[in-house]
Amino acid sequence: MSQSFFTAHRATLDSALKAIRERACWSAYPEIPSGKVYGESAKDDGQKAFEARLDKPFILTAHPGAPGAVGAEASPYGLSLGIRYPRVDLDSLIAASGKAWEGWKRADVEARIGVCLEILNRLNRRSFEMALAVMHTTGQGWMMAFQAGGPHAQDRGLEAVAYAYEEMTRTPRQAIWSKRVGKEETVTLRKTFRIVPRGIALTIGCSTFPTWNGYPGIFASLATGNAVIVKPHPGAILPLAITVEIAREVLREAGFDPNVITLAADEANAPITKTLVQRPEVKIIDYTGSSAFGEWIEQNAKHAVVHTEKAGVNSVIIDSVDNLKAVTGNLAFTLSLYSGQMCTTSQNIFIPRDGIETTEGHKSFDEVAGAIVKAVDWFLSEPKRAAEVLGAIQNENTARRVDEAKQQGLPVLRESKPVVNEAFPKARLRSPIILRAESKDREKFAREMFGPIAYVIATAGTDESIRLAADIAREKGAITCAIYSTNPKVIEKAEEAAMDAGVALSCNLTGSIWVNQAAAFSDFHVSGANPAGNATLCDGAFVANRFRIVQSRIPVAG
Amino acid sequence: MSQSFFTAHRATLDSALKAIRERACWSAYPEIPSGKVYGESAKDDGQKAFEARLDKPFILTAHPGAPGAVGAEASPYGLSLGIRYPRVDLDSLIAASGKAWEGWKRADVEARIGVCLEILNRLNRRSFEMALAVMHTTGQGWMMAFQAGGPHAQDRGLEAVAYAYEEMTRTPRQAIWSKRVGKEETVTLRKTFRIVPRGIALTIGCSTFPTWNGYPGIFASLATGNAVIVKPHPGAILPLAITVEIAREVLREAGFDPNVITLAADEANAPITKTLVQRPEVKIIDYTGSSAFGEWIEQNAKHAVVHTEKAGVNSVIIDSVDNLKAVTGNLAFTLSLYSGQMCTTSQNIFIPRDGIETTEGHKSFDEVAGAIVKAVDWFLSEPKRAAEVLGAIQNENTARRVDEAKQQGLPVLRESKPVVNEAFPKARLRSPIILRAESKDREKFAREMFGPIAYVIATAGTDESIRLAADIAREKGAITCAIYSTNPKVIEKAEEAAMDAGVALSCNLTGSIWVNQAAAFSDFHVSGANPAGNATLCDGAFVANRFRIVQSRIPVAG
Repeated sequence: MSQSFFTAHRATLDSALKAIRERACWSAYPEIPSGKVYGESAKDDGQKAFEARLDKPFILTAHPGAPGAVGAEASPYGLSLGIRYPRVDLDSLIAASGKAWEGWKRADVEARIGVCLEILNRLNRRSFEMALAVMHTTGQGWMMAFQAGGPHAQDRGLEAVAYAYEEMTRTPRQAIWSKRVGKEETVTLRKTFRIVPRGIALTIGCSTFPTWNGYPGIFASLATGNAVIVKPHPGAILPLAITVEIAREVLREAGFDPNVITLAADEANAPITKTLVQRPEVKIIDYTGSSAFGEWIEQNAKHAVVHTEKAGVNSVIIDSVDNLKAVTGNLAFTLSLYSGQMCTTSQNIFIPRDGIETTEGHKSFDEVAGAIVKAVDWFLSEPKRAAEVLGAIQNENTARRVDEAKQQGLPVLRESKPVVNEAFPKARLRSPIILRAESKDREKFAREMFGPIAYVIATAGTDESIRLAADIAREKGAITCAIYSTNPKVIEKAEEAAMDAGVALSCNLTGSIWVNQAAAFSDFHVSGANPAGNATLCDGAFVANRFRIVQSRIPVAG
Repeated sequence: MSQSFFTAHRATLDSALKAIRERACWSAYPEIPSGKVYGESAKDDGQKAFEARLDKPFILTAHPGAPGAVGAEASPYGLSLGIRYPRVDLDSLIAASGKAWEGWKRADVEARIGVCLEILNRLNRRSFEMALAVMHTTGQGWMMAFQAGGPHAQDRGLEAVAYAYEEMTRTPRQAIWSKRVGKEETVTLRKTFRIVPRGIALTIGCSTFPTWNGYPGIFASLATGNAVIVKPHPGAILPLAITVEIAREVLREAGFDPNVITLAADEANAPITKTLVQRPEVKIIDYTGSSAFGEWIEQNAKHAVVHTEKAGVNSVIIDSVDNLKAVTGNLAFTLSLYSGQMCTTSQNIFIPRDGIETTEGHKSFDEVAGAIVKAVDWFLSEPKRAAEVLGAIQNENTARRVDEAKQQGLPVLRESKPVVNEAFPKARLRSPIILRAESKDREKFAREMFGPIAYVIATAGTDESIRLAADIAREKGAITCAIYSTNPKVIEKAEEAAMDAGVALSCNLTGSIWVNQAAAFSDFHVSGANPAGNATLCDGAFVANRFRIVQSRIPVAG
């Protein structure tokens, strides 16, 4: 069965392998939520499937633990979810995971890859249901929840599967080693190289992008033969629970113990993650979340291979522009999208105190800052668009942070004006607050203010802007940096600084492409070269240490 | 210049790339110390070069530190070396290393690979000098010192360069990403992917195989653009000092700051390694040495990517044999070679208490144990052969351990009889001691007894032998395991157990191939899957995390 899954999806795998070598534009899973692609009833089916989950226990057949005993998700849109997941006892969970691993680790590479590809394929068909699960846990707008939570996340998972396949197959399964050791003697050995997975892998999900950030680790670990315990954020369990459900269904069909993948749900008032991280049986950890907890894992999980994606402080450097309106329009979308709750959203916008040059002449600092505010205002002036793009605020702390940002004592360029979502009147909403700072206010803006909070910062000039952006990236971490300049020398300087600070640079983005977007198979998400994370989604290093090669050699006839 | 190095050695690189994919028998550097290969005067030249080093400061031009101020090596053969190396102040060393890195990290992949290949090429030409440097620091016999210290080590270095090249070039330098984002709009970006090395890499050498174990880390780090600080074992500085000297010469010729590679020598009574390891500027650590210090590094160097090769307890399982004499002859060489001071040497030989089947009929436990002892005795009965194969004992602790092994209260099957080396009457020599144990004596043999110390252990049968070998590998680490069996089912069982314990298995080795040999480009040395080490020489994971990819993207005309 799993061999036939491999055969069925071979073409997809081959295309993915080509894509990770070329890193041009490619995607396996259509991002357009169209009935023509997904089937005319797909949207309705997804809606019904989601609704059928509400106020019920989420049953995972033959899963360890007490069914329907844990879970306290609340939709940022004000919906009551009322879904209860199995409560696992960690000893039993780890025992079940370890037992299931015995069969999985001995499976052929093709069998495992086939299972992974089939899981992704079924996840894709369930993208409409997933969209609602992501929307009502993370607060993303529907379209974003569909794309980032569905096909884009699936693409990231497939990318990890492709890297894993390439890494596992670069060494032959067998080799004949034949050496002349004397005038009369030749030694010939048959060497067998076996992929030995590490054991139990733990994926710790985040509350904002549970699937997009979770799939690379989950699929990289599964593909390389590890058993995976999925520990979702207590605020965003459903998307990963559905993922686990689908994966277990495919595993069972392929003849494997479904406990190869398990769910470890918890509630915020009784967290289990620290205990799980410290279990010596856990050999791989993939984490997305806050810097504080990520650093704790990096420091304390010395028994495991650890991949982290933490937080950072992302910058925009405005040096000079062709068309100011195109630039501020682009930035307005970046600042508004999902209310700034992306790890790639810009926070600090550096502009020379003396203003900048544009094709329409010199613009003062205040004119540029004002144009940004105006662009955000205009962008959010259409309530339906505003509601869709802003989404909702995932958790109360983020909302509180927006309210408190005003108390930093900095001039407010744009208040976080009230917004209304007509479809969800109880949604937790905040629009971007924009503050004005001077470069000397560094301690106020040189830390992550997660959510729709931006600083427009006056600097002595672009040199200082670049230096500040790079220094903050190096010290606090950063995942993205944007620069706007009409001067190739300035771009080059920013590239050098970004390289040194290990932060991905986007230059002169206008139109339908934004600094906070990262495309699977092309963009390397997080560099691993500054405190924003120690790993990249996805590259060779992300998969290579999830398994080991153990060899056996025996003499054969020459 | 470095580009021309790349061109000059391109064919060697291509062959190495082919070899790491095929893992058949291949070597770039001839292991036969023949005048026809190395030049008729090569041996004499090497001798003279070595002698010219003695009782003099070892000068590294423009190297940080006080020249000729540190070093207390003593040849295990009794020779006085009297070579003094620069004493480095760590702050200045790290500053110089970091400064040199600035140019090196920005060099093209081809430039760096060219430099590495040229260094290896020059090291190869200096193999006779290196043989004496290795011999008189490690105590290896001359032939082994030539092969393992010269061409075999160079092959391991080249293998790391090949993996590094492949890893750095699997991602294109640039890609055009073009996406239709609407009916009328296409976004086209040029993406640049830059290899960003981690920074300063530290290689900590061991006293027994300074080059063979050191080159993979040194060359993997250099090739991927890191500056390398080489910290030799205080007892085996010279081989790595010569390596650093040659590398600096090539770097200088290629237009780079020679401090891209530096030497941090010390003496046993004033060690600097712990301080170096804890420096936050050190981003990569490659370590070979004792388990205790290796574990300390793994636990404490949280700021760095850490690769360790530590110690283990290696087993031989004798189940049944065709030709007992061929087996015991093979084991005699394994136990004698370099007086058991290889991390791959077998320590525990498990034999069923009730004896084994051979083609010459049943042999009792005592007969098999006696045959092993007899084979060692015979092998060492020819003094010249014994002297060459045994080499000398690298340090006093190992010699003492041999003397103390008798005090474990186990029956002695073979005393560590006096051996004489006529060429070096003052050499520190010990021949193998062989003790008899029962499986219940586990606490006595289930720990590493580094040196020429072996246990022949009576078990309830091969099942117990396999279980003990695997359990000890899992708990204490193991790099090699050998099995002798005429039963394919037993071999299969041992393979499964070895896979689970992460230890490389050699089956039925007789003739001119031994369990303690590992061939570059074919054998994976250390699995990284048990406590004997966390890395493999050499695989994808060994190189992939020594650099990161940082991208930049900018719109271009579609």
